[in-house]
Amino acid sequence: MKYFAKIKYLGSAFHGFQVQPEKRTVQGVLCEALSLATGVPCKVTGCSRTDAGVHANEFCIAVDADGATVPADKLPIAAARFLPDDLSLFWAKECDENFHPRYDVKSKEYLYRIINQKIYDPFEVGRAWFPQRTVSAEGIDRMQQAARYFIGKHDFSTFMSEGSDVTDCVRTIFDLSVKENNGLIEIRISADGFLYNMVRIIVGTLMEIAYGRFSPEDVPNIIKARDRAKAGMTAPPFGLYLNKVVY
Amino acid sequence: MKYFAKIKYLGSAFHGFQVQPEKRTVQGVLCEALSLATGVPCKVTGCSRTDAGVHANEFCIAVDADGATVPADKLPIAAARFLPDDLSLFWAKECDENFHPRYDVKSKEYLYRIINQKIYDPFEVGRAWFPQRTVSAEGIDRMQQAARYFIGKHDFSTFMSEGSDVTDCVRTIFDLSVKENNGLIEIRISADGFLYNMVRIIVGTLMEIAYGRFSPEDVPNIIKARDRAKAGMTAPPFGLYLNKVVY
Repeated sequence: MKYFAKIKYLGSAFHGFQVQPEKRTVQGVLCEALSLATGVPCKVTGCSRTDAGVHANEFCIAVDADGATVPADKLPIAAARFLPDDLSLFWAKECDENFHPRYDVKSKEYLYRIINQKIYDPFEVGRAWFPQRTVSAEGIDRMQQAARYFIGKHDFSTFMSEGSDVTDCVRTIFDLSVKENNGLIEIRISADGFLYNMVRIIVGTLMEIAYGRFSPEDVPNIIKARDRAKAGMTAPPFGLYLNKVVY
Repeated sequence: MKYFAKIKYLGSAFHGFQVQPEKRTVQGVLCEALSLATGVPCKVTGCSRTDAGVHANEFCIAVDADGATVPADKLPIAAARFLPDDLSLFWAKECDENFHPRYDVKSKEYLYRIINQKIYDPFEVGRAWFPQRTVSAEGIDRMQQAARYFIGKHDFSTFMSEGSDVTDCVRTIFDLSVKENNGLIEIRISADGFLYNMVRIIVGTLMEIAYGRFSPEDVPNIIKARDRAKAGMTAPPFGLYLNKVVY
C-alpha cells in the first residue's frame, strides 16, 4: 500500500523535514509513528525540504507501507495515537506506486508572516517575524510595487543561499502578494519550485525595499545580477509556512 | 506615579495571575520587570485572577510606582526589555491614585475557543480545547438556543466551583454568543463580573447540551437549582481567554 497524505506542523522543535542522525526531524518522527500505526516498516517521502524552524500548514508526503492494511481514510486517526502535539496528519488517500510527492508538484505556495507592531505579541513568538523597525503604509506600498517584478520566469540565483547543489536556477513565480491587516503583514508566494532560502531572501529584500535601502525599480537589476550579495537579508525561518501544494 | 496598562499573555507557563511563593505568576513577573524598567519598587494590581493555563488578549493592570519618571507612553518599550516572550505590556497611560482595576470594572468579556475537528491542530495545542467528540451543526444550534437562557441577571451559584469565598452569586450576563467557523467554535461571554470557574462551567454545560445530555430548555432549571452538581463539566483552562475589559 502507498498512501498520499497531508500533514501540518509547528516547526519550532524540529530540525527541519529531512531525517538526520541524532536530530528530531519531521521525517524521522513521521516514519516512526506511521510504522507503529500501520504495523509495517514505512518509508516517508516529502514534497519539500523545509529548514529548521519553518512551519507547514499543508505539507504533502507519500508513505510506502508494503503490507499495510489500514484503510487510507483511517490513517489520520491511527497516526494521531503515535504523533506528537506539534505534528498532525489530517488527510490521506491511497495513491499510485509511481507517485512522487516532490517531482510531481505543479506549484507550491509559501506564506511569510511579519508582525508590524512596536510591541511583540506573545501569541506570535516563534510563529512570525518581529523586525526591529515597523513598516509604514508607504513602505507596504513599496513592497507591493516591488512584488510585481518578481512574478514570471527568471533565473533566481540572486535569491539562493550557498550550500545547495542546484545548477538550474530558473523558476517561475506565479504570484507574489503583500497584504497588511491589523498589524500583520502576510506575504504569499507561489511558484513551480523554490531555490534554497529563496522565499526568505525575497522577504528580506522586500523589507529592505520597505525601509528604503532599495527602490522597487531596483528589483529587475537585482534579479539580473545573479549575485546573492546584491539582495537583502535572509528573513528568519520562524515566519515561514509551507501553505499549499498543488499536483 | 500610577499607571493604567494593558497586557497580553499566553497562560501556558504561568501559575495564573496572582502572586504565589515559588511559582511563576503573571503578577510576580510583571512586578519584577516593571521595577527594573522604572527603577522604583512597583506594586501591580490586576483586573481579575485568571487561573493557571488561562490566556489573556487584554488584561488591565494598575501599577503603583512612587517616584517613577518613565512617561506612560514609553512604558511599553521600557517594559519590553525586561518581560519574557509570553507576556507583553502593549499600552499604558497615567491614572488617578484612586483607580482600581478590579473594583472599577464595568464589564469583562471572555472568549472560549474549541477546535471542532476530528484531528487536532498543532498550532492550537494549549491554545484551544480539543474535545474527544466533535459537535454537529445541530449541536451548534442547540448551544445557540441554550445561550439565550443565560443572558440577564441571575444567581449563578450552579456555575461556581468550590474554593471561593464569594457569597453574593448574582451576576448579570450582558451577552453570550456561540459561533462556528472553519472547525473553530468561539464562545464569547460578557458580564459585570464572573464567579470562580463560571465561564468554564458554562462552556462545559453548553457542550453537554450540544451532545444531548441536557436540552437547551433545561438551562433555566439548572440555573435555579443553585447546585454545582446540576451543571455540566468544567471545560479545561487552556481554551479560555480574557478578551476585553470595560471601565
